[in-house]
Amino acid sequence: MSLWRRLTGTDTREQIHFRARLARYFPIISWAPYYNRHLLSEDLVASIIVTLMVIPQALAYAILAGLPAITGLYASMLPLILYSIFGTSRTLAVGPMAIVSLMTAAALSPLFASGTPAYSQAAMTLAMLSGLILAVMGLLRLGFFANFLSHPVVSGLLTASGVLIAASQFASLIGIGGSGFTLIDQLAHLLTHLDGVHWPTLILGVAALVFLLLIRRAGPMLQKMGLSAGKATFIVRLGPVMAVAITTLASWALQLPAQGVNVVGDIPAHLPPLSLPSFEPGLLRDLLLPAFLISVVGFIESVSLAQMLAARRRERISPDQELVGLGTANLAAAFTSGMPVTGSLSRTVINFDAGARTPAAGAFAALGVGLVILFLTSLIAYLPIATLAASIIVSAMTLVDLPGLRRTWHYSRSDFAAMLITIVLTFVEGVEAGVMAGVGVSLALYLYRTSRPHTAEVGRLPGTEHFRNIRRHEAEVDDEIALLRVDESLYFANARYLEDTVYGLLADRENLRHLVLICSAVNLIDASALESLEAINARLKDSQVTLHLAEVKGPVMDMLGNSDFLDHLTGEAYLSTFAAWTDIRHRLDDERAALLAAKEASSEVQAEEPDPDPAETPSAGGKS
Amino acid sequence: MSLWRRLTGTDTREQIHFRARLARYFPIISWAPYYNRHLLSEDLVASIIVTLMVIPQALAYAILAGLPAITGLYASMLPLILYSIFGTSRTLAVGPMAIVSLMTAAALSPLFASGTPAYSQAAMTLAMLSGLILAVMGLLRLGFFANFLSHPVVSGLLTASGVLIAASQFASLIGIGGSGFTLIDQLAHLLTHLDGVHWPTLILGVAALVFLLLIRRAGPMLQKMGLSAGKATFIVRLGPVMAVAITTLASWALQLPAQGVNVVGDIPAHLPPLSLPSFEPGLLRDLLLPAFLISVVGFIESVSLAQMLAARRRERISPDQELVGLGTANLAAAFTSGMPVTGSLSRTVINFDAGARTPAAGAFAALGVGLVILFLTSLIAYLPIATLAASIIVSAMTLVDLPGLRRTWHYSRSDFAAMLITIVLTFVEGVEAGVMAGVGVSLALYLYRTSRPHTAEVGRLPGTEHFRNIRRHEAEVDDEIALLRVDESLYFANARYLEDTVYGLLADRENLRHLVLICSAVNLIDASALESLEAINARLKDSQVTLHLAEVKGPVMDMLGNSDFLDHLTGEAYLSTFAAWTDIRHRLDDERAALLAAKEASSEVQAEEPDPDPAETPSAGGKS
Repeated sequence: MSLWRRLTGTDTREQIHFRARLARYFPIISWAPYYNRHLLSEDLVASIIVTLMVIPQALAYAILAGLPAITGLYASMLPLILYSIFGTSRTLAVGPMAIVSLMTAAALSPLFASGTPAYSQAAMTLAMLSGLILAVMGLLRLGFFANFLSHPVVSGLLTASGVLIAASQFASLIGIGGSGFTLIDQLAHLLTHLDGVHWPTLILGVAALVFLLLIRRAGPMLQKMGLSAGKATFIVRLGPVMAVAITTLASWALQLPAQGVNVVGDIPAHLPPLSLPSFEPGLLRDLLLPAFLISVVGFIESVSLAQMLAARRRERISPDQELVGLGTANLAAAFTSGMPVTGSLSRTVINFDAGARTPAAGAFAALGVGLVILFLTSLIAYLPIATLAASIIVSAMTLVDLPGLRRTWHYSRSDFAAMLITIVLTFVEGVEAGVMAGVGVSLALYLYRTSRPHTAEVGRLPGTEHFRNIRRHEAEVDDEIALLRVDESLYFANARYLEDTVYGLLADRENLRHLVLICSAVNLIDASALESLEAINARLKDSQVTLHLAEVKGPVMDMLGNSDFLDHLTGEAYLSTFAAWTDIRHRLDDERAALLAAKEASSEVQAEEPDPDPAETPSAGGKS
Repeated sequence: MSLWRRLTGTDTREQIHFRARLARYFPIISWAPYYNRHLLSEDLVASIIVTLMVIPQALAYAILAGLPAITGLYASMLPLILYSIFGTSRTLAVGPMAIVSLMTAAALSPLFASGTPAYSQAAMTLAMLSGLILAVMGLLRLGFFANFLSHPVVSGLLTASGVLIAASQFASLIGIGGSGFTLIDQLAHLLTHLDGVHWPTLILGVAALVFLLLIRRAGPMLQKMGLSAGKATFIVRLGPVMAVAITTLASWALQLPAQGVNVVGDIPAHLPPLSLPSFEPGLLRDLLLPAFLISVVGFIESVSLAQMLAARRRERISPDQELVGLGTANLAAAFTSGMPVTGSLSRTVINFDAGARTPAAGAFAALGVGLVILFLTSLIAYLPIATLAASIIVSAMTLVDLPGLRRTWHYSRSDFAAMLITIVLTFVEGVEAGVMAGVGVSLALYLYRTSRPHTAEVGRLPGTEHFRNIRRHEAEVDDEIALLRVDESLYFANARYLEDTVYGLLADRENLRHLVLICSAVNLIDASALESLEAINARLKDSQVTLHLAEVKGPVMDMLGNSDFLDHLTGEAYLSTFAAWTDIRHRLDDERAALLAAKEASSEVQAEEPDPDPAETPSAGGKS
């Protein structure tokens, strides 16, 4: 049977199975065999719009990364094609992206002078390492690692990076150029170089900035002027392209480069040359951590975006396969004179809105970039850097999420703490430090929270089978029975805390005879917690208190069955709290009845003796 | 009112309150005012036994730490007195301890030559740092930090250290001396130095070892010979003291030092000289991490032991105050020519069994050690090092817990993994690496586990209000309603996993109209999880599925109230699953009735028309 037949036929179960298995690793198989003229036309339209968008962005982000502008275009070709084969999102637009470029510059600047061939080669090396890390994580199905970057940390990172990126471009906008990677460096640089302001650049940059800011809000006005909502949105989106076209034209007409305005300059009119990243061990070691952080941050951004858009069309993406898709894209960038790439927020949204149906749209955009490189570079030569700076500033400011900060503050102080620390460290020490501190703080706060679990003593709501916190509700209690609900999985970090809680209860409740641990919220009892339960059981036994369990979940009970704890347990493991309550009450009633009977019997015996005070002092009673 | 009156009187509420507050920081206040002749006699007996035990142990552990033997005795004086003032355990015997000594040697050996004054001063510096860390942690109430050392990690650490300690002493036993801090180094050292075996030392050492091993098992035999159980145990316990006495006597009588047998040698007959640790910044930096790890490991060992023994007598200890107690003990060691100290397992158990009632027993033992230093050092000079090595080997082997390994393997593979990694890294890289790897692995495994929470679709057990996993039980279900129980707190690490689970359910269940998330085991919903819930709510809304919550706990509901999620929620937040189930069923029934009525109305209309097939194809019906 030919491979094509096996791929396209729907005849046999074997064919279907083969295709499904293969499509897991080559998602292109899930759509390419069904590609048709209709899909083609939709993808083509989207790809033309994205190509128009990608040109100024790619140039700008390459400059942000401290690389020659053309590197951005090189990184917008082969990586897109590779992603269309291995990626699972139908609409993700891969290529240079603001935060990743910022992190690239931060990683490379301490090692090499910006703009040198060594710097460019190091950028390829970074892309290669990042690609390898992503691909390997994908093959090992380690996509869940990205989940440890919590939402407040990502949001804080975006906000802080937005400010950093805008601040770094402000220097280019006013013709100063070059700046640091922390907010303090940048402010210091700006303040000490204010005398170097280049007025023609400043005028051009501010004009571009004002134009871009105005056109973003021009949508409603255009609609009032009679345009349809769709057309108005389209014109607004083309704002950056228009700014590029107008200022490039002005730059050419007025010969601005001769007056000292920085422009992109001559770009060789050929496709990306093949390249070899550096394999120097020292450099690889230096770049490993930055590559890891770039990979994770880029992946999180891409996958969140892809997931959100896929959900809108009821498609699904596979985070693990996304790792492979982004990994191969970065490897492609590494060997075609590129730079680290990932999913771009703005271009992806435009691709989606413009109606892209399959990853082919990305491949077509790559071809579009190729055509631009081959035929239009002479135009781009006059494009002023200040225009690119203005467009970066405008899009960077959209990353800043101040309402998110307020919302998080109201919702949870500890989430806000993680967010704030991320922002502050990103400002003071850069993106890498911000990410690591944010992850560290979120994990530490989570562990701290679970290490002091909420417990509640519950009582029966009269007449029902419901048991509620006795501090919040008027509930029925018995001073010989304590019902303790534990609101957390029991593991090493809180095992000792549980012991403290139980021993405290024991010290407070003199008449206690039965303690029931209600485990409805206990999803795990690890070996340390098991030791603690055994200690609690033994100690309660010494104090003549019986320990019971209630509402232990299936999987937890299965685990307990692997130890001999249930054999030692002084009491029972009840299915429900109500069952525990009724059974223990019965037992106590029986015991009390037996005790009473015994007492009566003993007082009858004693009545025959002359002792006039039979039951007052137990020790005396014991002696009799 | 005199201070004494305020401390001892029980007259006024103010006095009682004052004393309780003070006793929190000076636990001695809780017992010293009530000290009497009865307690004194019990403490004295225990202290004599402990003094006998502490002499050989302190000498041996000092040698294990690479220090002059006398250092062990110095560290067994002032630290005990300080602990009796600030410690909360009534029976903990503080002083040099095997694992801490091993870690001390591992920390100092790379820096200084063993036996030099610089090495001794560094040991004091380590004690000072360790004391400061413990005391500060105690004052900041950070005792819970120790909880992150899980039971399997501690158990693995003890097992591996036991083997390491025994192996290191084996070299001394056969007269080779000096060895490494990883098992590989030690084995290599032994194998390459086998030709250096000193036969007289070997014979003496093996004899002591055999004697110690035999006497440990002599208890039952002695009882058969007519001794009481108590006396038999006492004799067994005195085994090491007897071994020391006999071999010292033999060493003196046969003048073994002249034949090359290593002995403790001359010890200056004066009390511990005051000393000043080094404050050299480089050294402090080098020792900071070892000091922290020594503190934590020592603290865990002490506090577990103290807690276990306190529980037996219904006393309570305060872990935070224990940190202060051990901290001041180490600071005392630092300034009296000592070494890092902590609670000793064997001596504490003996102290407890011998009937010590208050920390005064520890102070009396310190005085006993002082008397020995002043009057008996000339005897100790002849004590062979090999005897000490033999006694260390025997007690180190008791740390090895092979049944614990097997038990953990059966109970939980991930706990076993943490244990195994601790053991392997301790063998290969030393105790510090073992501890850190163990903590890292336990945390990572816990986070991994919580990042993929167990979820169960539940159904109603017919005729009851109970809802159980439909895969485990024969339960009532409705294909328009899904009841999903989430068995984990929702936080950043599993928020996306929850989205995947819900979207998977949505894809599988075509007729789904209502989804109920049962949150009985959800103890926390953080900001990331809230974003995911909002995304789920929005996506379900797009698919015309209503999202409900059930059994949300009080504290979680309070948090949700701080966001606007409940306003957006398409469905309801029900108190119980049963309430959700009945209410949604009613709603669906009403809707179906309405639909049926509408259909009937429409079919009546259609009946008037010629269309013969009114309801077969919905699209046709839609057109009508």
